[in-house]
Amino acid sequence: MLKGLRKIDPYVAGSQPAEENIIKLNTNENAYGPSPAVHQALKNFDADSLRKYSTLDQAALRQALAENLSVPADQIIIGNGSDDILSMAFLAFFNSDEVVLFPDLTYGFYKVWADLYHINYHEIPLNDRFEIETEDYFADNGGIVITNPNAPTGIYKSLEEIERIIQANQDVVVIIDEAYINFGGQTALPLLEKYDNVFITRTFSKDAALAGLRVGYGIGSPQLMAVINAVKNSVNPYNVDLLAEKLALAAVESWDYYEDTCQKISQTRDWFSGQLQELGFEVLPSKTNFVLVEPKGVTAQAIFQGLQERKIYVRFFPKVERIQNKLRISIGRRDEMETVLDVIKELSL
Amino acid sequence: MLKGLRKIDPYVAGSQPAEENIIKLNTNENAYGPSPAVHQALKNFDADSLRKYSTLDQAALRQALAENLSVPADQIIIGNGSDDILSMAFLAFFNSDEVVLFPDLTYGFYKVWADLYHINYHEIPLNDRFEIETEDYFADNGGIVITNPNAPTGIYKSLEEIERIIQANQDVVVIIDEAYINFGGQTALPLLEKYDNVFITRTFSKDAALAGLRVGYGIGSPQLMAVINAVKNSVNPYNVDLLAEKLALAAVESWDYYEDTCQKISQTRDWFSGQLQELGFEVLPSKTNFVLVEPKGVTAQAIFQGLQERKIYVRFFPKVERIQNKLRISIGRRDEMETVLDVIKELSL
Repeated sequence: MLKGLRKIDPYVAGSQPAEENIIKLNTNENAYGPSPAVHQALKNFDADSLRKYSTLDQAALRQALAENLSVPADQIIIGNGSDDILSMAFLAFFNSDEVVLFPDLTYGFYKVWADLYHINYHEIPLNDRFEIETEDYFADNGGIVITNPNAPTGIYKSLEEIERIIQANQDVVVIIDEAYINFGGQTALPLLEKYDNVFITRTFSKDAALAGLRVGYGIGSPQLMAVINAVKNSVNPYNVDLLAEKLALAAVESWDYYEDTCQKISQTRDWFSGQLQELGFEVLPSKTNFVLVEPKGVTAQAIFQGLQERKIYVRFFPKVERIQNKLRISIGRRDEMETVLDVIKELSL
Repeated sequence: MLKGLRKIDPYVAGSQPAEENIIKLNTNENAYGPSPAVHQALKNFDADSLRKYSTLDQAALRQALAENLSVPADQIIIGNGSDDILSMAFLAFFNSDEVVLFPDLTYGFYKVWADLYHINYHEIPLNDRFEIETEDYFADNGGIVITNPNAPTGIYKSLEEIERIIQANQDVVVIIDEAYINFGGQTALPLLEKYDNVFITRTFSKDAALAGLRVGYGIGSPQLMAVINAVKNSVNPYNVDLLAEKLALAAVESWDYYEDTCQKISQTRDWFSGQLQELGFEVLPSKTNFVLVEPKGVTAQAIFQGLQERKIYVRFFPKVERIQNKLRISIGRRDEMETVLDVIKELSL
């Protein structure tokens, strides 16, 4: 038997079916696709430049984001998806012996990173309405992670409440994971000017329709940036490839397009939620590009399977307590959601 | 003061000057650029596909590599550069309390990962000829990392000696980092059939001229693959973007092109080494795409600066013991190396 092999329970991602002609609503992708500027940037890219290493600091992309977000460029770090940023943030910011706090339910990866890096943590149950209770995060801790809006619930927490959590925890780092913030929530970015202990993470996978490109970023105070940049340079300094940097830059520079598609998705979500409620389904109020719903008169399992037989993929969590009978359905284009609604109606009869 | 912030000394990569019209010989890139098939794959890529997540398992790329290397596809793992693979391998394989062994000198990143992940390690000095001494690795340990050929020395260790190290350490994982194996060395891949404790890492950054694309891979026994795949799914499951997978696949499928360019580089290296030796320079025997040389009658610092004034970048390690007066010079095209030689001659007068 070999010494030193690690034993861990990895994160289990949603499946990525390779079939054609499916409606894929299981990993919160963006149905509208990248902007014309991204297509153009790909066309203009010279493959020959790939012989040289990518940049270490993604200066051009950080500058464009800085202008878009009104934060200094040196307070931004780019990663290989926000999973990369979050993984590095756990290594960088959670090194005390005290427990790191995050909700149960939230993004399932937080406890996987905590386990992987031997970080103590405590999961705090959501309240009966599946909301994060602000006061639950006033206990002693070694750091906090809040997804806002939360996943897989979709529920948004007001900026005032987020600020109360940050204010009550001035001695630790509070990570706000804003993967879904551009579907109707209010960003915590303005709090960066008041608090040194906030670290905000973002991704190009949802609003920017570039899940396959793997680009995410984090924003924090100069003190936090020094630490997480050192971690980046201790894990994988060239973590963002040249193509990813160029295409993400084109996305930022064409942000009007994305504001438009995010608005369409939000409108479709609200319409779809209303339709399901008319069927008697319980729909959590969402400010994301997905909804978490509990069927009425039929099980989540039956709908999950019935949809899958028609090549419609949604996410079902049969082993996660409190949501065993719920489905997380990503919001696609309006025509796709009309099809999904028709099938759900048929399966609910 | 915030609790939990990490203190670390990060790896310091070679600089990536952005100027045009330079001869860049400081990070062992491949001057010949990617194959025509890679250019074509980029042209054929549909940016719209980026809206969906990348694959979790890179099945197509692993299959192509499997055929090229004559190993089963499920014994291959793909990563975001071999740095990503090595970082995960340290997490996956080095969890005993005993010290992990690697040479001093070798790839400077090993001790950075060991520090980052709280892994005990011991660096074993190279012998007087800058070689790895096989018997030094017969001591009790918690794992071993050998770069073959070694960097920054360029020196290749015979497969028989590599096998002796693996054989003497059947209770731990032995990582063989083969970043430079295709410039004249003999791969340890055939040893995979005999030993379950070998893990071999490779990169597309050197021989495949795709440093900017960030793709690397690892090959090991089914037992090791189970552990490192669990680690991958616990760090960043979507660590390889869709474009990187497609372009790397095109590179593997056009491997004849790369065999040709690797041979050209090896020939240029041997010619360049001979020329420097004629100047009285000490040149370590290299089987890589770089040479480590000690000037005669002039300091390494003077040559480093003189080259840089002419926009020729090489690597100089003024703070690394034993090689303070050496330069690591990547091997570019023959015409580039002729220019470099002329400048060196001028500076050595």
